[in-house]
Amino acid sequence: MSKAQIGVYGLGTMGSALALNMAEHGFQVAVTNREVDWIAPFMQEAGDLAKNLHPFDTLEEFIQGLATPRVILFMIPSTKPMDMMIEAVTPLLEPGDTIIDGGNANFHDTRRRSALMAKQDLHFVGMGVSGGESGARHGPSMMVGGTKHSWTQLKPILQEIAAKYQGDPCVDHLGPDGAGHFVKTAHNGIEYADMQAIAEIYALLRDVTGWDAPQIGALFEGWNDGPLHSYLIGISGKVLQATDPETGKPVVDLIVDQAGQKGTGRWTVIEALKLGQSASAIEGAVGARAWSAEKETRKVAQGLLTAGTIPVDLPDADDLQAALLAARILGHAQGFRVLQAASDEYDWSLNLPRIAEIWRAGCIIRSSLLDDLADALRSDPPQGELILAPAIRASLDTTIAPLRRVVASAVTNGIPVPALTGALAWYDSIRTARGSTNLIQAQRDFFGEHGFIRIDKDGVQHGPWNS
Amino acid sequence: MSKAQIGVYGLGTMGSALALNMAEHGFQVAVTNREVDWIAPFMQEAGDLAKNLHPFDTLEEFIQGLATPRVILFMIPSTKPMDMMIEAVTPLLEPGDTIIDGGNANFHDTRRRSALMAKQDLHFVGMGVSGGESGARHGPSMMVGGTKHSWTQLKPILQEIAAKYQGDPCVDHLGPDGAGHFVKTAHNGIEYADMQAIAEIYALLRDVTGWDAPQIGALFEGWNDGPLHSYLIGISGKVLQATDPETGKPVVDLIVDQAGQKGTGRWTVIEALKLGQSASAIEGAVGARAWSAEKETRKVAQGLLTAGTIPVDLPDADDLQAALLAARILGHAQGFRVLQAASDEYDWSLNLPRIAEIWRAGCIIRSSLLDDLADALRSDPPQGELILAPAIRASLDTTIAPLRRVVASAVTNGIPVPALTGALAWYDSIRTARGSTNLIQAQRDFFGEHGFIRIDKDGVQHGPWNS
Repeated sequence: MSKAQIGVYGLGTMGSALALNMAEHGFQVAVTNREVDWIAPFMQEAGDLAKNLHPFDTLEEFIQGLATPRVILFMIPSTKPMDMMIEAVTPLLEPGDTIIDGGNANFHDTRRRSALMAKQDLHFVGMGVSGGESGARHGPSMMVGGTKHSWTQLKPILQEIAAKYQGDPCVDHLGPDGAGHFVKTAHNGIEYADMQAIAEIYALLRDVTGWDAPQIGALFEGWNDGPLHSYLIGISGKVLQATDPETGKPVVDLIVDQAGQKGTGRWTVIEALKLGQSASAIEGAVGARAWSAEKETRKVAQGLLTAGTIPVDLPDADDLQAALLAARILGHAQGFRVLQAASDEYDWSLNLPRIAEIWRAGCIIRSSLLDDLADALRSDPPQGELILAPAIRASLDTTIAPLRRVVASAVTNGIPVPALTGALAWYDSIRTARGSTNLIQAQRDFFGEHGFIRIDKDGVQHGPWNS
Repeated sequence: MSKAQIGVYGLGTMGSALALNMAEHGFQVAVTNREVDWIAPFMQEAGDLAKNLHPFDTLEEFIQGLATPRVILFMIPSTKPMDMMIEAVTPLLEPGDTIIDGGNANFHDTRRRSALMAKQDLHFVGMGVSGGESGARHGPSMMVGGTKHSWTQLKPILQEIAAKYQGDPCVDHLGPDGAGHFVKTAHNGIEYADMQAIAEIYALLRDVTGWDAPQIGALFEGWNDGPLHSYLIGISGKVLQATDPETGKPVVDLIVDQAGQKGTGRWTVIEALKLGQSASAIEGAVGARAWSAEKETRKVAQGLLTAGTIPVDLPDADDLQAALLAARILGHAQGFRVLQAASDEYDWSLNLPRIAEIWRAGCIIRSSLLDDLADALRSDPPQGELILAPAIRASLDTTIAPLRRVVASAVTNGIPVPALTGALAWYDSIRTARGSTNLIQAQRDFFGEHGFIRIDKDGVQHGPWNS
């Protein structure tokens, strides 16, 4: 039997879908799984594609079934199991082999693992995969970290199975060690902000205007033909218009408002903070999910806390659409800013326009906006700031005033819109040449002798306080 | 010569002040410093207090000069130097000795160091000290972590040198290992939010109403006699009214709006996120300092980005005062919530009312509010939530509507107020029993089959989507 070109270990939702995608593109794929009894059903479901799939029952046989230098994709939890797997598989590998972690790893782990394996002349690739099951099966967006050697091995396969945007495969080698997983983390951070901003517009229409879910869904469906065109707006339109077959009610009205989170949104904000950034719209989204978990507290609090609201009309649908576009631009800008800061910190030389390009298809945040952002990032904008690129400024010119109106209305009506307010505060911060932290510096000097810089003198100065 | 009761290593601003404070209270204090030539000037400046201060030139002599079991306070950087110091000093110590890190350590380091030293029957205390130089010299607030054994050693000294609130010393043993340093971190997080909220009110008065610094300072000075009575409002009034002797201009107008930060504010937000909390007002403050550092970008951006503002009058001074009180309450509530979450996570059994009490004097955030918060925390509020205590709700009843008016005005006028908006979004989140994350759950199920809980069924469900 000839050896397989790539191995896939882990036949859960994402691993199965990726293996089938590879097989469909004619690659010979070795497959295995920790629970051996998952393998036969998987092969059966593969149908015709089974001819390109080579199942193995043990790790040793699986490794031996691969052409060298080997390429092995692990679709297992990126936490402890990945470390255990590295320990188990390393003795079976040979110099030049590459193993890939295709899960949502914390990039710090990926950096550690890359360094560990490099000591044995082995290659570790942290690869972000976005697009959910359907993306993985029919064309995901993939963010690849690791060595050039590994990329040379992977490129022919990944370019085939990736989503295509006007023929351009949505995959690339983004940098060494943790670069791929970090970019995936930031992708998910942007996704959090985008989903939350949509949910906030939904909340305003539901709770201020009193629209029902199908009405809001139809509005979103219409928006999907305009500048908000995106996967997330599209599916929001669909789910809001979906009816529960049992009760006849809108499905979303039956869903408990408690959202899960797996870490990537939170990691984006934590890494942003460590890098001296404020990803405030993403923080708003992470915070909203955190609050959503505390259902009991919210129920009790609603009965006890004063609203202090003034009912005012919501701005019209055009304003809401424009506000959402502004918030979306700003959420993406926060994500790209975190990417730039991380690139500087870890010497990754991230190619931001290319990252925007490989997000244009296959992934959850795919949208027409990303094509504009890619162009803007390529245009060498002033100060390297995405939102200072002329085309993006033009979009903000017409959408910032609506965002202000929508946020002011939400604040007055008492609807929490942390992503929208986070985005707007961020925008107003960057465009304020003379802020108010001069007072903070005065306070700090008063109580802690921290000193300050004067506008008219060099060097650290102190105030004439008499404390 | 009789042995000293306590040693102070590190004669910088804070170490010197604490050593002098102890000497003044009659304790026999051994002192030393890495740079030996700092010691003589320190002794000279000590004046009469020199009789209680015992200088040593080497670490060995310093240690030998202490009564056993020893108590040694290190006032050195809590980063690498602290680890090096532990390595150097450990061989010189005996079982039962306690060493104290009085700096702003990351509590994770404190936990690690405590565990390391415990292996040799040595005790490591992470102690937060607040109050700046003046507090350290005349009465700081101190937050003590570590073992009961160490507290027994430390208590007689610390209770003497601490600030007193109506006779009650502002110091206590708060829990094991990292508890003291974590509480200090959260204290600083609250301090960040409080300083930022004050700076935002200042910005509104300066940039919307056009008041000059002395006018704003006089207003704040007046507020210091009301419910906002606090050290930070008091010093804000003072620094805003201070005149530069050279130019005759208000000092704050000469200070560059770039604020430094040393980590504790950022740590508070990072730990909040890790604990599933959203400390949004504190995040707004940390973000504002991050933005302040990017002066060049802000200058360029101001010239390029559309404002999209509508000039509207600012609410009156009573509204601003009420809004600031609401934001202050909510910033503190965020801090106490983080403390509770950390206490649960690390099994510290933190006594939140006692923490509020030891912050009533000596520390930077001391205020009349903290006395009210201590009472509220003792009152066993509904769901354990500080802001659900009747007295605190009563304060919010009259201040939330003003906070809404102020935030709406800031948003419309284009003044960034991230701490005020973060506080308000947080308030609206907790009082919203039915939020909008049901839509997020629908989206997640659509693209990732994450599933959701229904209001009318048990167990994880999926939607009838046709993706």
